[in-house]
Amino acid sequence: MSSSRLIKCLSSNNYIVRSFSKSSIPTTPTPDFPGEYKEPIVKTQIPGPQSKALIERLNKLQDPRAAHFFADYANSRGNYISDVDGNILLDLYCQIASIPIGYNNPELIKAAKSDRWVSAIINRPSLGVLPPKDWPALIENSFMQVSPKGLNQVFTAMCGSCANECAYKAVFMHYQHVKRGGKPFTPEELSSCMKNQEPGSPSLSILSFKKGFHGRTFGTLSTTRSKAIHKLDIPAFDWPAATFPDLKYPLAEHAKENREIEDRCLQEVEQLIKTWHIPVAGIIVEPIQAEGGDNYATPYFFQGLRDITKKHGVSMIVDEVQTGMGATGKFWAHEHWNLTSPPDIVTFSKKMQAAGFYHNLDYRPSESYRNFNTWMGDPVRALELEVVIGEIKKNHLLDNVVITGNYLKDGLFDIAARYPGLIQNIRGEGTFLAIDFPTPAERDRVISHIRLLGVEMGGCGERSIRFRPMLVCQPSHINQFLNRFDQTMKELYKN
Amino acid sequence: MSSSRLIKCLSSNNYIVRSFSKSSIPTTPTPDFPGEYKEPIVKTQIPGPQSKALIERLNKLQDPRAAHFFADYANSRGNYISDVDGNILLDLYCQIASIPIGYNNPELIKAAKSDRWVSAIINRPSLGVLPPKDWPALIENSFMQVSPKGLNQVFTAMCGSCANECAYKAVFMHYQHVKRGGKPFTPEELSSCMKNQEPGSPSLSILSFKKGFHGRTFGTLSTTRSKAIHKLDIPAFDWPAATFPDLKYPLAEHAKENREIEDRCLQEVEQLIKTWHIPVAGIIVEPIQAEGGDNYATPYFFQGLRDITKKHGVSMIVDEVQTGMGATGKFWAHEHWNLTSPPDIVTFSKKMQAAGFYHNLDYRPSESYRNFNTWMGDPVRALELEVVIGEIKKNHLLDNVVITGNYLKDGLFDIAARYPGLIQNIRGEGTFLAIDFPTPAERDRVISHIRLLGVEMGGCGERSIRFRPMLVCQPSHINQFLNRFDQTMKELYKN
Repeated sequence: MSSSRLIKCLSSNNYIVRSFSKSSIPTTPTPDFPGEYKEPIVKTQIPGPQSKALIERLNKLQDPRAAHFFADYANSRGNYISDVDGNILLDLYCQIASIPIGYNNPELIKAAKSDRWVSAIINRPSLGVLPPKDWPALIENSFMQVSPKGLNQVFTAMCGSCANECAYKAVFMHYQHVKRGGKPFTPEELSSCMKNQEPGSPSLSILSFKKGFHGRTFGTLSTTRSKAIHKLDIPAFDWPAATFPDLKYPLAEHAKENREIEDRCLQEVEQLIKTWHIPVAGIIVEPIQAEGGDNYATPYFFQGLRDITKKHGVSMIVDEVQTGMGATGKFWAHEHWNLTSPPDIVTFSKKMQAAGFYHNLDYRPSESYRNFNTWMGDPVRALELEVVIGEIKKNHLLDNVVITGNYLKDGLFDIAARYPGLIQNIRGEGTFLAIDFPTPAERDRVISHIRLLGVEMGGCGERSIRFRPMLVCQPSHINQFLNRFDQTMKELYKN
Repeated sequence: MSSSRLIKCLSSNNYIVRSFSKSSIPTTPTPDFPGEYKEPIVKTQIPGPQSKALIERLNKLQDPRAAHFFADYANSRGNYISDVDGNILLDLYCQIASIPIGYNNPELIKAAKSDRWVSAIINRPSLGVLPPKDWPALIENSFMQVSPKGLNQVFTAMCGSCANECAYKAVFMHYQHVKRGGKPFTPEELSSCMKNQEPGSPSLSILSFKKGFHGRTFGTLSTTRSKAIHKLDIPAFDWPAATFPDLKYPLAEHAKENREIEDRCLQEVEQLIKTWHIPVAGIIVEPIQAEGGDNYATPYFFQGLRDITKKHGVSMIVDEVQTGMGATGKFWAHEHWNLTSPPDIVTFSKKMQAAGFYHNLDYRPSESYRNFNTWMGDPVRALELEVVIGEIKKNHLLDNVVITGNYLKDGLFDIAARYPGLIQNIRGEGTFLAIDFPTPAERDRVISHIRLLGVEMGGCGERSIRFRPMLVCQPSHINQFLNRFDQTMKELYKN
């Protein structure tokens, strides 16, 4: 999708009030999920009595306070998650945006029982030391099938936080390598790093954006700026944070104003790079700030970032942990930008199931064992990625995402029109959509209420609901959501 | 094993020169591994031509420089790893100490094909939000079957680095919670942490030991002190490092001298806690410094650490990522110490396959979502742990480790006696053994040479070889190693 199409999508308002009846549902090139439920089934409160008993039992062993309910995964199918009390919910949150092609996908079941998968699971290799014989072929058939344009190397890791941590390390090593002009390490560097002191442990920084989220380990948490609860009591590096554009939606209706906002933010980024008391080696940015509230910027802004980073010799890391793998209608959200040169690093996890980052040879460290660990990822997750990519291509799931996303967005505009001021800032790309409510309490009330009607959803930012359906979510599923959302709004606001 | 037995083991020198013939091999209560190879088979150079071609191919996609060879895992069995050139090697390194019960273990194969495993793999949950219905029971049947005495909670994670990162977070949250006397966060804390500034992002430290290794992410790397290559060019927290005892082996022959060394080290730890310019919230220590050279301290030292940490309100983290899960003849190496009160936190990964840390309720954060992430570990690895623990118990693998380890140690003393000054500092517990060579080059030459005779091994520290066989390694396997080690020494040193 071109940038003009992106802006058009984000500003679409040609909705009409509809009844969300079966006849109005568009079809997609994607086949129905085999054996899926017809619609949500709610039998008890959620969490129900069995979930509550299990929460009590888990509490003796582990912190259960974030649990929505206990799931019965054997009984879950496609877009529907089952709980232990026999409730069947339409899942639009999908394990914090990490299920790509449906619960109990038959192709994944078949593959998981194969000797190849079984061997990968039980003979877990140290991939850096003793890689399996099919590892290069598997990389070609999985990661490289969807490698971002211009990046031909992949570093594999275990999760999104580790992907970003290792990306930061690659950026710092690259920065110092350039600085020392390829010369070997000095004796001072070799000895001082053992004391965590300069010059071996240099004072360098990664610039991130306010409201950004990049993980919870010590490096990534120093760049996460979404919520205090993630950061309180944890020591952090004194790294700079720039303001992310706080744009007005629909974007196209506020193009001039938004451009001014983005220009100010770009100026701030450049100013921070020039003046921060610790040199900025890299910046990290999400294409859409997800955990921080589904905040958008335009391709103009990201091209500006690329220009500034190029100008100042700063690496540009695009964090596609949540946006990658199709939810915006393209494999990578940054494809919507048409950058004049690729980002230096693109990180991934979640719906990829396998985690890591793409890069080029200039971000391979000068020696081996420098960006390294015991497992270096997990080959079974690369095998899973191979199946997921195959399904996306065979079943035209990116086309499905565009059709389903447009249908969802239209439906949201329909309902919002009947609740002026309550449902705000409908925005997004593909099925990666979000809406705002006036207050956090109202947002939370809607999520709790619609769960009791059989839809599992999640919030983000202060007062947003984020839509994170699977790539196999079709307009018919969205219709079930829209009817229940309509009902929720009626019941809560007596309209 | 009591501490006196530990010291006796570490100081054992009642070896006799033997021929490593079949008749001298002790038996263990552990059954032979089904369908295992009889001995190593070497057909080509290692890496052979097919491994070399694959290294070339991988180089186009990923850094291959640390690869020893490409493995054929389908063809590997028990203690033997197969490479792509048809060589069969006795594996005494085991994917950097992380394979517990043998390649293609039949019980793991059977379990991996079960519906329960398949569902866990392909329906990957966000364990903190939507745990599977069998999660509490699975925790009870896996992690809690081997929980260290005195610790009844488990935090699950994806790898050893993340286990330690999250443990540090738990320690910092605990420290601040105690400091603020349970009071709520102040507005200053809530706002300052978003800027990575005090008081919300406090200046606190974790004390670690020189030569220690705890991971490679930014928090853990700040506590890793084993080698410069891991740390160069990466910004680090200004945290203190104490001297780990550099004891003389055999320990019992140098008891007085060693005690003085340990006393000096304990004084240094206390001095650092009292005087470091950043308050010390926790210390982390390996029971045996593994990556840093298999360095030992006595139970006296660890009890001293426990006393000092208790006295100063500092949390004690024991990093059992490499030592845990049976290799010392007990599930946890710190069981050998008989501490007067348990450590506050014990971290694990590697042979557990599942990663995380044990703790008590006082290290559960005050609110949910504070020590959190998308996946919170991987249930399939807990399922694997369940099988591994079952096999350890059913097949008496801890007894096997003690018998095999003693046999290995005796054999090493035999050979060392014929190469005085060349093979030094034979030391260890269970099969967690190590030897030193006079120089790094000599150590590397031995490892390279014995690989060509069909034994896969790994180094540690500057000039050590570490033995990290599986728990299913028997004296008969060790005999194969000893004969090849003997041959290696003869061929390299013409004795």
